[in-house]
Amino acid sequence: MGFTRLTPIADATAWIDRAVAGWVEVERLSLREARGRVLARDVAAVKNSPPFDRAVADGYAVEAVSTVGASTYNPLTFRLADSGGAAFPQASAVALGSALPTNADAVVPLDHVEEDEARSTFEIVDSIAAGANVERAGAAFRQGTLLLRSGTRLGPSHMALLAEAGIGAVEVVRRPRVRLVITGLNLVTAGNELPRRGVFDAGTPMLRGLVERDGGTVEICIADRTSAHSIRTAIAARDTDLVIVIGGSGLGRNDAIVLEGLGHPARSGGDGLSIHGIALRPGASSGIGWIGGIPLFLLPGLPVACLWAYEMLVGRAVRRLSGRSPELPYSQREFVTARKIVSNIGFLEVWPVRCILGTDCVEPVLAADPDSAGGLFSTVVEADGFVLISEASEGIAPGTRTRVYLYEPYRPLRFEIANG
Amino acid sequence: MGFTRLTPIADATAWIDRAVAGWVEVERLSLREARGRVLARDVAAVKNSPPFDRAVADGYAVEAVSTVGASTYNPLTFRLADSGGAAFPQASAVALGSALPTNADAVVPLDHVEEDEARSTFEIVDSIAAGANVERAGAAFRQGTLLLRSGTRLGPSHMALLAEAGIGAVEVVRRPRVRLVITGLNLVTAGNELPRRGVFDAGTPMLRGLVERDGGTVEICIADRTSAHSIRTAIAARDTDLVIVIGGSGLGRNDAIVLEGLGHPARSGGDGLSIHGIALRPGASSGIGWIGGIPLFLLPGLPVACLWAYEMLVGRAVRRLSGRSPELPYSQREFVTARKIVSNIGFLEVWPVRCILGTDCVEPVLAADPDSAGGLFSTVVEADGFVLISEASEGIAPGTRTRVYLYEPYRPLRFEIANG
Repeated sequence: MGFTRLTPIADATAWIDRAVAGWVEVERLSLREARGRVLARDVAAVKNSPPFDRAVADGYAVEAVSTVGASTYNPLTFRLADSGGAAFPQASAVALGSALPTNADAVVPLDHVEEDEARSTFEIVDSIAAGANVERAGAAFRQGTLLLRSGTRLGPSHMALLAEAGIGAVEVVRRPRVRLVITGLNLVTAGNELPRRGVFDAGTPMLRGLVERDGGTVEICIADRTSAHSIRTAIAARDTDLVIVIGGSGLGRNDAIVLEGLGHPARSGGDGLSIHGIALRPGASSGIGWIGGIPLFLLPGLPVACLWAYEMLVGRAVRRLSGRSPELPYSQREFVTARKIVSNIGFLEVWPVRCILGTDCVEPVLAADPDSAGGLFSTVVEADGFVLISEASEGIAPGTRTRVYLYEPYRPLRFEIANG
Repeated sequence: MGFTRLTPIADATAWIDRAVAGWVEVERLSLREARGRVLARDVAAVKNSPPFDRAVADGYAVEAVSTVGASTYNPLTFRLADSGGAAFPQASAVALGSALPTNADAVVPLDHVEEDEARSTFEIVDSIAAGANVERAGAAFRQGTLLLRSGTRLGPSHMALLAEAGIGAVEVVRRPRVRLVITGLNLVTAGNELPRRGVFDAGTPMLRGLVERDGGTVEICIADRTSAHSIRTAIAARDTDLVIVIGGSGLGRNDAIVLEGLGHPARSGGDGLSIHGIALRPGASSGIGWIGGIPLFLLPGLPVACLWAYEMLVGRAVRRLSGRSPELPYSQREFVTARKIVSNIGFLEVWPVRCILGTDCVEPVLAADPDSAGGLFSTVVEADGFVLISEASEGIAPGTRTRVYLYEPYRPLRFEIANG
């Protein structure tokens, strides 16, 4: 790599966590806009639920005391509230979910009555207890009940709960605004003609997707990689919460101009890369620093290196700024390694793995350098997930139980369980 | 419930699968628009990757043959291509990722050379093999290589792969358009004043979120629940792929008008509810049918019943129409039940469960009827996921290994593994 010192990943993530700690900004949104966002404050119910005593069966609302003594030998007759016939105690037809009339305290279900529609009466042959088939006002929750805690990411069913509690707007974490500065040489947008020395720009569509997945919004800015001034202008953004520069992260001659543009904290009043070179593969040439009080990240241009540098470093910051868990947004599961996975001591290495169908085993999909272009193809197409191998490890021996991060929610083929 | 016959959930899902089989429609989108969508066709590379032989290190591109014999006793001198000094073999400075000049077939890394900048020359003390630090054109994949299969849901890293392969647009499954017909009585939008007998409309914000999560778009339509004609008009939608009617699914007097509006296949030339009453709790009063050749679903108005009826029935159709897996979009994991979970024979029951911290156990969060309003609070706030208990089962005994569907990606606290 040529870096004289690589910063351990734990130090880099600690730097990131400190850099964005307590930065979260808040905005108030209507329920409709708030889905997928993270609550910035605890939310309490502003109404009881249910808002009134309500029927939980279709039937007739009655005073329970008026049903005492009913039996097959002694059927009792009730009259509907809006009919005549004051000789009988009164009842009202109610539907499941509707409010109980005043004085009623129980609901006789439809299939427990014998109706006489002509006379607007019905008979019952069983008494009923007060509260039967009734849900009391506030039984689910009362006004003031803590419903959802700050930090909850609002999914569809949270929407139902908030709406039921009478809440029309909530305070959520504002989306972090991320500026992507593209510095590649001869980059071409996919779908266009590729000139002799050109390379399709794979980083922009990928990073846009990653930042949006983690809750951020993206603004794209293209800088001239042959001009330090152009780089300097592109990163000095207003109304931005985080800057990502893609490409020019190495130590070659072409990279020197990008690095000059980013500056060095010792010469630029704290702005520039505080860390350059991280013990992460792919992604070792990544850098981390500041620009005008905003976190600044330098990512490799090679797509597979850019991917993992984002996932392990930048994504952590974006997720924190979005109010989410900083952890990798993948589900995890233990698998057993079917083959040895080799790793270099001194690097946290990311190795794509494939699940072996019908077993609890995974195998690596790459034999060679994860930094190669082939690495992207294997990582994306051939793998079901990945493992992380720590700096202290030379790899994972066959037959080892191993934590695998999965691209898709895990759906086992077989379950030896009661409800499978 | 009052339904004389409940359709088993397996029959209902088979009906749904048949109803939407082969319905997927296709549209062509640019990469930027295509993220999150599902490929409708296999995609092959239209370019080699890398597009040219390229350096995988910063250094000097040379002809390997010209380095033969180099050693500490016999350093060999090279001159840069754009300098004079024809006495030495020629080399070109190259950066990681850049194209190799014609004739060069290897890259000497920067830290393997002794540079003499004044003379534009450098010395090496090791020979280098042809192909060293070079990635051949097409090494990752060649023009025509199958990259991604039809059915792949495009995530951020797929974007990178497609862009790198020169693909600017893809054919994806069109989003299904879902019409939500709201029929509740006295429904009030959350945040407004609640009249005496009113209920906040929890179904609309929830179903909008669920349909969007599953890849569909939503159009809202409010029908007058006291008029069968209004219901009939609301469901007869054009440019819609699926209709969901919320509320009025029961057998009470208030529900009869909604059912009349939906019609019955025997009387309406095939339109209306083919199935009404499903062996699912919560959600037993759901219905399934057709309207003008489009699938029609009737869901209960009670939010917790509406939620599970969507997840188990409608969501399956929406996910299929979006080109996704019809399975529930939750990750699954085995847990052990810490307490008995009681279930009624004859119903597929959904029971919210809570993970017990620091163990592999779950416990039910509801002791009572899952259909109550409290069911929503427990399901959303108190649970980490849910279990499904089949029609044939009276429940799950304590200590049983059980499949749990988890709301969040599973992140174990402890891992007894090599890379934990």
